[in-house]
Amino acid sequence: MKTIYLDNNATTQIAPEVLDAMLPYLTKFYGNPGSSHRFGSHVAKKIAYAREQVAHLIGAHEDEIIFTSCGSEGDNTAIMSALHIKKDKRQIVISKVEHPAIRMLCNYLGNNGYTVTEIPVDTEGRLDMDMYEKSLTDDTVIVSIMWANNETGVIFPVEEAACMAKERGIYFHTDAVQAVGKIPINLKDSSIDMLSLSGHKFHAPKGIGALYVKRGTKYFPFLMGGHQEKGRRAGTENCAGIIGLGMACELADKNMTGNIKGIKKLRDRFENRILSDIQDSIINGTKDMRLPNTSNIGFKGIDAGALLSIIDEKYGICASAGAACNAGSTEPSHVLSAMDVPYEIAKGTVRFSFSTYNTEKETDFASEKISETIKKIETAVKQR
Amino acid sequence: MKTIYLDNNATTQIAPEVLDAMLPYLTKFYGNPGSSHRFGSHVAKKIAYAREQVAHLIGAHEDEIIFTSCGSEGDNTAIMSALHIKKDKRQIVISKVEHPAIRMLCNYLGNNGYTVTEIPVDTEGRLDMDMYEKSLTDDTVIVSIMWANNETGVIFPVEEAACMAKERGIYFHTDAVQAVGKIPINLKDSSIDMLSLSGHKFHAPKGIGALYVKRGTKYFPFLMGGHQEKGRRAGTENCAGIIGLGMACELADKNMTGNIKGIKKLRDRFENRILSDIQDSIINGTKDMRLPNTSNIGFKGIDAGALLSIIDEKYGICASAGAACNAGSTEPSHVLSAMDVPYEIAKGTVRFSFSTYNTEKETDFASEKISETIKKIETAVKQR
Repeated sequence: MKTIYLDNNATTQIAPEVLDAMLPYLTKFYGNPGSSHRFGSHVAKKIAYAREQVAHLIGAHEDEIIFTSCGSEGDNTAIMSALHIKKDKRQIVISKVEHPAIRMLCNYLGNNGYTVTEIPVDTEGRLDMDMYEKSLTDDTVIVSIMWANNETGVIFPVEEAACMAKERGIYFHTDAVQAVGKIPINLKDSSIDMLSLSGHKFHAPKGIGALYVKRGTKYFPFLMGGHQEKGRRAGTENCAGIIGLGMACELADKNMTGNIKGIKKLRDRFENRILSDIQDSIINGTKDMRLPNTSNIGFKGIDAGALLSIIDEKYGICASAGAACNAGSTEPSHVLSAMDVPYEIAKGTVRFSFSTYNTEKETDFASEKISETIKKIETAVKQR
Repeated sequence: MKTIYLDNNATTQIAPEVLDAMLPYLTKFYGNPGSSHRFGSHVAKKIAYAREQVAHLIGAHEDEIIFTSCGSEGDNTAIMSALHIKKDKRQIVISKVEHPAIRMLCNYLGNNGYTVTEIPVDTEGRLDMDMYEKSLTDDTVIVSIMWANNETGVIFPVEEAACMAKERGIYFHTDAVQAVGKIPINLKDSSIDMLSLSGHKFHAPKGIGALYVKRGTKYFPFLMGGHQEKGRRAGTENCAGIIGLGMACELADKNMTGNIKGIKKLRDRFENRILSDIQDSIINGTKDMRLPNTSNIGFKGIDAGALLSIIDEKYGICASAGAACNAGSTEPSHVLSAMDVPYEIAKGTVRFSFSTYNTEKETDFASEKISETIKKIETAVKQR
């Protein structure tokens, strides 16, 4: 059975161009970029080039890019760096809908001497900017607000939020893991101090990411050891991963406008078909400021886990639930809870996320089969 | 020009079998192992298998293996975990010849409230076990002693050292980055609590490693966030890297005896030829307890940087200096300094390190050309 992969916010296919760029560095050019011989320094030059490619995508200087192993490492590094530098301050400001890499770390910090202020979102998933502004105090060390939400795709006004933090001398970090490569980002003249990105969300391999640290922003390393990344992140470089990430950035940069247009068209077509077919379905999250590839749909009265399992097994359609299923119990996700999505919708919420590799043919097939399946479930429920 | 790669302690070629194992997970099987659909859980199953392969190589249970991004991450994680758990104790014991991932972290900790005791080595690079035993106190949190030294290849009696720590209720970690895959390691019934390994030192790709944490050893995660690695290391898994590491472990396991024999024969032949050709050359480090692949040779009166540069450019021979060359100045490495190697030998020290992919033909060519080059340098120096 062919796989119809509508789970691109979870991870993406590696672009063939990315794999092509990586392969020489998984085969004959295996030198260590830290070695002084030419066999090593050849790799170091390719890494320098990849750093430029990454920097270019987000309007940064190449010395502002630190390669990491994943988005979570970038997130942890940014927070811990700020806390290390401003040891006298104790408040951290985040949103209620951050990724676990920020959320779980801040949970821990909240139980260990820090005050964590969580900014709420409204029923459409938009950040409460008044509450945000009021939350910033003389004791605030760092703000960490995601660029775009992984579940709903809702985009936050991070530049505006960063300006408010900057005026008060507060570090501003953004987890941009779901935004980089999908929408234009330009950090030239930005007030953002730090930004985390992850390669596998936009067609680079898993296991590689980067942390942007603005020139002049004080920084303290998370991983200590060798002189890699100018002493800012120890450990032998994931060379092939870095080179792949560079190529993925170049591709995203080059194809941004066309990709956005194409993916949005596909997503909207899919979404409109489902919404018109299924009466009791709604979009979670504002439609105005949303990633072009994400569709978070709540199906009232449906069990998302059951729906996903049927469309996976019968049609090879891959998507994600808007709820974390643990040992049989279905808890609504923290994102849907923060948006006050009613339980009967939250438990029936599915996230569909698209990429440039999806085709109209497969998404039409998917919307048809999903609608069909939901109607069957609804009929079965009514007949009980 | 063909590359003759004698720098296998810096990094190694990826085994063709390893790349073959990885490729499906860099192409068609790109699912996220955390996803509930079959496309994701297929990858999760492969990761579970890789965990068994890694565990098997070192005589561990698979639930004792946590995948990391590199050896440095394993080292940092082990130390920080122990300090987190035993907050009331303040002493850390390491050797004077640890890798920077331990050394730099402990330098930092030494300046931030901890007492770091560095156990000396003798002129042959062997750990002073009397000093070690005396260093263990009621205030010791953790010992971190490397299994084998990256520069000299000298193997430390880590099991004996771990027993002494265990008797006193002290955590024992070993940086086994240079040992795993090269010599047999069996942690069944071991007193070692934690062990770091890195894939790229034995024919897996760069960017993947593992931390062994013994069942029952209390552990606190370094990277916080998602539920990956049972909550012990957040971040989307480097799936292809993990699968490659698994295969590299299986290969090392299967071929251990033959590899050791073959590599040792090659290394000894190379070493004996050099030593008999060059009068003023000596082996740094004991020959009795040494990795089979490492040869650290001091050439009296020679500038190692100049020698390496000539053999690299003229013959494509790759090796490493036993000194860190920074901006023109040649500082002997901390390992050679700890061994009291005289300056005129330390500055002329080169580390040659072999792998199963080296051939007798190329190493014979290398030893011949290295001897020739040294003699030319010596003649030129005398004629000045």
